[in-house]
Formats: sequence, structure tokens, C-alpha cells
Amino acid sequence: MTFRAVKPIDGTPYGVEIPEHTKGDVDSRIKKAAASAHAIANQSPKERALLLRTIAAEIEAVRTSLVESACAETALPEARIGGEITRTTVQFELFARLVETGKHLGVSIDKADANYSPAPRPDIRKMNVPLGVVAIFAASNFPLAFSVAGGDAASAIASGNAIIAKAHPSHPNTCSTIELAIKSALKKCGLSEDTYSIVQGVNPQITHWLALHEDVKAVGFTGSEVVGRILVDLAATRKEPIPVFAEMGSLNPVFVTKNAIADRSEALAKGIIDSALMGSGQFCTKPGLVFIPKDEDFVSTMKSHLATLSVAPLLSKSIADRYSSAIAKISDGGKLEVASGIANDSGFGVTPTVFITDWTTASSNHELLEEHFGPTTVIITCDETQYVEIASSLRGQLTATIQGTDADKPTELLSVLKEKAGRVIWNGFPTGVAVTSAMNHGGPWPSSSSHTTSVGTDAIYRFMRPVAFQGFAQSVLPEPLQDANSWAVPQSIN
Amino acid sequence: MTFRAVKPIDGTPYGVEIPEHTKGDVDSRIKKAAASAHAIANQSPKERALLLRTIAAEIEAVRTSLVESACAETALPEARIGGEITRTTVQFELFARLVETGKHLGVSIDKADANYSPAPRPDIRKMNVPLGVVAIFAASNFPLAFSVAGGDAASAIASGNAIIAKAHPSHPNTCSTIELAIKSALKKCGLSEDTYSIVQGVNPQITHWLALHEDVKAVGFTGSEVVGRILVDLAATRKEPIPVFAEMGSLNPVFVTKNAIADRSEALAKGIIDSALMGSGQFCTKPGLVFIPKDEDFVSTMKSHLATLSVAPLLSKSIADRYSSAIAKISDGGKLEVASGIANDSGFGVTPTVFITDWTTASSNHELLEEHFGPTTVIITCDETQYVEIASSLRGQLTATIQGTDADKPTELLSVLKEKAGRVIWNGFPTGVAVTSAMNHGGPWPSSSSHTTSVGTDAIYRFMRPVAFQGFAQSVLPEPLQDANSWAVPQSIN
Repeated sequence: MTFRAVKPIDGTPYGVEIPEHTKGDVDSRIKKAAASAHAIANQSPKERALLLRTIAAEIEAVRTSLVESACAETALPEARIGGEITRTTVQFELFARLVETGKHLGVSIDKADANYSPAPRPDIRKMNVPLGVVAIFAASNFPLAFSVAGGDAASAIASGNAIIAKAHPSHPNTCSTIELAIKSALKKCGLSEDTYSIVQGVNPQITHWLALHEDVKAVGFTGSEVVGRILVDLAATRKEPIPVFAEMGSLNPVFVTKNAIADRSEALAKGIIDSALMGSGQFCTKPGLVFIPKDEDFVSTMKSHLATLSVAPLLSKSIADRYSSAIAKISDGGKLEVASGIANDSGFGVTPTVFITDWTTASSNHELLEEHFGPTTVIITCDETQYVEIASSLRGQLTATIQGTDADKPTELLSVLKEKAGRVIWNGFPTGVAVTSAMNHGGPWPSSSSHTTSVGTDAIYRFMRPVAFQGFAQSVLPEPLQDANSWAVPQSIN
Repeated sequence: MTFRAVKPIDGTPYGVEIPEHTKGDVDSRIKKAAASAHAIANQSPKERALLLRTIAAEIEAVRTSLVESACAETALPEARIGGEITRTTVQFELFARLVETGKHLGVSIDKADANYSPAPRPDIRKMNVPLGVVAIFAASNFPLAFSVAGGDAASAIASGNAIIAKAHPSHPNTCSTIELAIKSALKKCGLSEDTYSIVQGVNPQITHWLALHEDVKAVGFTGSEVVGRILVDLAATRKEPIPVFAEMGSLNPVFVTKNAIADRSEALAKGIIDSALMGSGQFCTKPGLVFIPKDEDFVSTMKSHLATLSVAPLLSKSIADRYSSAIAKISDGGKLEVASGIANDSGFGVTPTVFITDWTTASSNHELLEEHFGPTTVIITCDETQYVEIASSLRGQLTATIQGTDADKPTELLSVLKEKAGRVIWNGFPTGVAVTSAMNHGGPWPSSSSHTTSVGTDAIYRFMRPVAFQGFAQSVLPEPLQDANSWAVPQSIN
């Protein structure tokens, strides 16, 4: 069986016929990856860094082709796709810089100590080792940055794993181009091309084949809570359960103070709407709930701004259909005000739609408190004194934002939001996730399935586990654990 | 309902009637712990270190009472219990030393950078925060070191969590004494006594109440694969799944080379048997599978040594019964040699029993390849050239050991064992786990449910999660993230 990509701009097919992989194909790719895992695991930091930089260079070399296919397959503008490619290559470079320091190996050395309490201790040396084969699931909304060579794959390769990446059926040609680039880099670095492969298809069983295969030792996923939960549940049924690092649903609540509105009403009103509509509202960090004090003028400014805006088509027909039916259902629910932007009637285009209601209505309408992919958000009026209680009632979030001024004392609200979110933001907008060391992209369930980050250099620690070596001669120990430390990695010596 | 402890030495009751906690009791203790979690979470490193040291001092103050109850409730010798108490107090001191450095907070600071690629970045600062309430399950085999104030509880308190600990019904009086000591320490340090509570009972539903309570945010467990799996599965069914850090089953395979036998036959033969029978064979690191080249003399030395040994009664009637029935079943299986030590007929005493067989037999008899708690091990003869293949066929292990000499080149075997175990040992015995920085006590499933350690200072990282703060004024940031750094914690600044 084959399938083809579809252009969101007009619903027409794009690119070549893509053969859908069978169970046999998937199993064979996983087996080959497992067979090649030792070689990448045993690379020195220098070799690994070179591999990561070579991947970046090979991706850069096909930039033109990637821009063409990704723009066609997602309807995202060229500037966005170009930025994503740069983010992807910069990410490999960031991991290369980390890996060549050897810091990620987490080397800890306890020398033998006959006087140790409560008992003499032998020589024990610990380091992180890769898991083996990692399965990565591409997200629909980032054809490069969270796809088959996005944060999950880059961090898993950086830590020395072989990879099976499930291409997203909405941008299969883009994924194929990336696969060729990475295989080329592997070859140039003397590693087997089997170390990295993608699998293609629309068959939902592929997810099961990947998550349940005995050679797959971890899963990286970005997508909806529904699919994330399926993966987490599948992994939990295995005879040997494996970790699933899933980044899923988030409402990214924004709490606006009276002072903030008094200080910068227009900029704030426009900024919130722009953030909600950015990327056609298809960011996992989209502000999906905005809490404001009752203020007719402020709401009016938001509505006027919205009325001037239209957005690019959504990423796929199913996303567009789900958006439209959710919007219709909520609009019919009553007790809320519906404000619209400019309709986009071509391809998978939709109408930006914002709901305005109060907390009493919203808190009794679960549809309003669910994540809706697409250009929408829910503006909720309430008393500022309710913010702490409202925040306490929310589920886990990727981000939570406070918009205030120096006159506000957000200590109590911040304390609650810190418990609910993985990143709290002051006077900023949640959309836009910097790829840095201190970034945390993750948070309590359902925003993610584990207490880790899927963006930034710390993402590498998800795909390794510690192993201790006790009583070995220097010559038998892995290089990073030897006293000679020929790789010059940081050694914490006790 | 009430229950009483039973003395393994003669099967008679010991200590007071212990009231079994109802669901209402358990819920109430969890709710109280949740209400007290903020105060311990917000302690400074100095305050936390003082708390940990005060707990150690309060436990030390009741040493006599702990020795009396623990010896009676477990039949373990006084020297072992004394060592466990010391290990417990030393562990709190170790965590105090780590916590006062602030290293565990993992502070990372990315200052704002307008020239950052691929996009300007805001000021982002990340640190670890505690999870809230952690549920700890005491193990039967370590009435102090892996019980209600063992490695799991100590690390979870060190990271700033409130604790609900399920006392083990085999040593309830020991657990009660510990609870009073910790509550006294909390009071002395100005914290609510609700921050730490135990729950008592034999009702298996208590496990469910703890694992499924919405205020419980993580579980620490040491015990069998069967119960560990129940906890992991329960946690996975929650609307908000939580991490379960379970240390479960392990066979701790030992691979002996011909050279090792030629070098130190008698010491090795006795050492293996002593290690298998240590603590009446009730250590999670007991060598349960010993691979040796065919050598009649070596086997004969092991058997002769075993014939001179008896062990203390097992920890409980159910453990003794399970042991005896497993031994009887395996002995009846045929195609293996059964060697015995001296029977202990009093209380929950049993007969040390070792099986000698070959790999062909063992690999087709799943009973032989399962963990059996108690004074037994399986000696398997095979060709040394089979070691790599055999090791590859094993499940995950806490430890794996090679006994060899400098003439051996264990590189390939070591490479496989590194994938199967969390700790690999050269020329030592797996029993005996040092509480140090470089220790790793954990490994692939079923030895543990996560890629973490339950022994040593790194255990603290299981009970925290990262939170990033973006764009906040210095005065609003938590102390460890401020430029002023009044807590003087390590800050990784980019």
C-alpha cells in the first residue's frame, strides 16, 4: 500500500507515492538498528560530536529541498520553516558541544576506602550509558524541530542510541529527505546506515509495533494527550516496561492583573491574541486559557484586533475538522461570547475564533478547559482574588504565565503555578521555546509523562542510564572511568 | 482490627497489638502530609540539612529500643541490626552534606541573549523542586536500611517531600519507633509532625489506597517483582500517572573463569556459598545464578562447605513457606544435584539448599531462573565460551559479577553484562551495597522499574522535577536562582 502527502493550502496531493511499511519492514528496521547500536554507543565524545555536526551539515545541505517539501506539506510560511531548519541544525551543534565535554556521562568515582562508615567500600565508578534503540514519534506541528530529527531524535542520538523514527504522515517527503541526510552523515562517520531509519505509514498499528518491540528501549513522543496516553499504556503492558517520554496536552494559562492592563492595555490585548493565533494556533505552548479581571475595554481591544486577522490553513484535514467541530460545539453551548477573525476558506483553512466567558461558566464546561489545536483561546473574566484558587484547580501544564507590574506581589500565585507547570513566565508569552541549558519543556501530567524536558540540552539525560563498575582494573574500565581519563571528561572523585 | 508482630525465632507473638489503619486513616494521613508539604519544600539548604541530622540523632537516641524490636521481629543478629541503624543514620548525614551544598537543586541559568541563534532568548533559570507527597513501602529484609526511614524515605525527605510510609507488617514495632523519632525531629525543627507518617496493616488494599491517592506524587518500593509490578500497574491506571521507583527481582549472576578457580579454588568456593547464604539468603543482591566451568573438585569444595552451615530463621512464615515449597518443587524436577546445609528446625528456620545442574537443564526450567528468597543458589556448569551467549539471554539484573584473573580478557562478557545490569563487579561478591555517590543500585527491568538508583546520594534526584522561571525580577525568583545567590548553591551560568 502507498499513500501521498496532501497540501493544506488546497487539499491536492503532493510529492511521490510513499510505500507504507508493513510489520515485517518495521521489525526488520528495528532489528538492524539494534545490531548497529553497539558501534554508536562506543564512540568517543569527539567521534560523537563529529557525527552530530556532520548530521547538521548534511541537513543544511538539503535546506532548499526541505523548505520546498515542508512548506508544501504543512502550509507553514517559508520563514518559519527556515527557522525550524536552523533550530534543528543549531540543536545538533548544541548537543555536539555538550557531548564533547563528556559532562553528559555523569562520571562519579568513589575510590576504595577501608575506613568508610558504616563499612569499608570498594572502588566504585559510575557513568551513563545509552539505552540501545529509541523509537521517536514525529509531531504534526513542527515538520523539522519536533519531527524525525527534532529534539527527541537529536538528544537520543547525542546520547549514543540507534533510532527508529516514525515519520508523520502529514509531512512524509520532508521526513524522507531528513532520513537520507542522516544516513549520509552516518556513512561519512563510519557508522552503519541502519543506526537511523524512519518508518512511514498511516496505519495506526505501526505505533503498536514500535512501542511493543522488545528491542525498543524507550519512546520519545510529541503530540496529543490521547495518543500519548496510548503509548504510555502500551509501554506499561510490556513484559519489560520501557520509559515513554511524551510531551502532550497543555492549556498554558495566562493570568493578567489589573495593573498590567492599566500599564499596557493595547499591547497586552494584541499580544495575547497574536500568541494564541501564532502558527495558526498549533503550538503546544499556545495560551489556551487567559484569565483577566472584568474589563470591557480590554476585551473590546482583543476582539477588534482578532477581527483583522486570518491564519494559514491548518496542518491536516483531520486537525481542521476537529477544530471546526469543537468550535461549533462550544459556540452552541451558550453563556459565552464568540468573537471571530477572518475566515480562510481555501484548503484546510478555518476561522480564528475566541470565546469570552466567566469562571463560573468555564469551570462547569469541560470542553472549554480542554486543549483545542488551532486558532482559538478562551478568555475568562473573574476576580483577581480568585487566581490562586483557579490555578490550584488546573491540571499539569507546560507553561503558566503571569502578566503584571512591579506593583503586583505574585508570590502566592507563583507558588501554585510552580506546582502546576514546568515553566513559569513573567510578562512574556508562552509561545516560543528557547533551546538552551536552563529551558524546561515538560511538566506534570498531562503536559508530559515524566519529570524531564524535551527541549534543551538536558533532554539528553532521558536516553541514558547509570552503570556502576566495581573493583575493575584500570585497563578493563571504560575510558571515562579510568584514572588516566584520556577523554578528559569531568570526573567527580570522592 | 489489630495485628501483632511474630518472632521468627519461635513463631510467638511480639510487642503490642498494632491497630490496622482503615482507608479513612490512610486518606487522612495523606491529606495532612499534603497540607504540610509546602513548609518542608521551602526550607533552605541549611534548614534541610539540620532536619536530616536531627532525624539521625533522634534515631540514634532510640538505638537500644530499635535493636531490641528489630532483632525480635526479624531474627537478624544484633550486629547486623546495629550496622543497619548506623547505615541509616550515616545515610541521613550523607544527604545532609549533599543538601547543604545545594548541588541537588541543579541550578542552571541562561541569561537573556539578544544574539542567540536561532532566536533571541529571554532570561531563563531552572531548578529542581520536590514533588509533594511521596509514598514509601518498607521492605521485609532490611528493618532499618530499606524500611520506613531507609534509602527511599531518606532521599525523598532530603529532596523536600512529605512522606507516607507503609510499615512492613513483619516489623511493625520497629517502624513505630522510627516514626516517633522522625516526628520528634520534625517538631524540633519547627515543621509539622504530619510531614512524616507511617501506616500500619496487613490488608493488601492499603497498597492500593496509597498508590492511587491523588495527593501521592511518587512511590518508592523495595520488594518482589510481583508486588512491584502491581504498584507500577496501579500507578499507570491513574488519571494522572505517577512514577514508581521499584527495586524488585534480580538473580545477580556470577561468571567464574577457569583461571579464577585455578588461582583461588577454596576461597572462591566458600565465598560464593557464604555470599548466597548471607542474611539467610534474603539480600536482593544474593548471587542466585553461578556459572562455572565443569570442575568436580570445585563443586565438591562448595558442597563440603555448605554441609557445615546453617542459617538464622527466615523473616516471616510466608517467606519460609514459599522458600520450602520452591526448594521441594525444584528438587523434584530431576536432572540436577541437590546439596544441603544444616537444617534449622525452630520457628521459621529452613535448610540451606543449593542446586547443581548444567545450562541445558537450567535454561529449560524457568523455576531455576527465578529469584528465590532464602538460603539457596543455582550452580550451573557450562563451557566458558558460552558465557557471552548465556549473559545475553538473561533479563535485567541489579548486579552481575565476573570472577577471573588478570590473564582473562573479559571485554566481551563485560560489554554484555553492562547492558544487563546496573552494577558490574570484578572479583567481588554482589552482597554488600556501599552507600556512596558512585553506587548504582538498580538496573533494567525486572531489577528495577526506572533508570535510577535506590542506594547512594543520586537517589535524591528521583523525587524532584525541574521548573524553569522565565523573565522574573530578581526579588521574585527563588533564592537559588537569584544573582545574589544568598544560599551559595552551585549555579551553572550561560
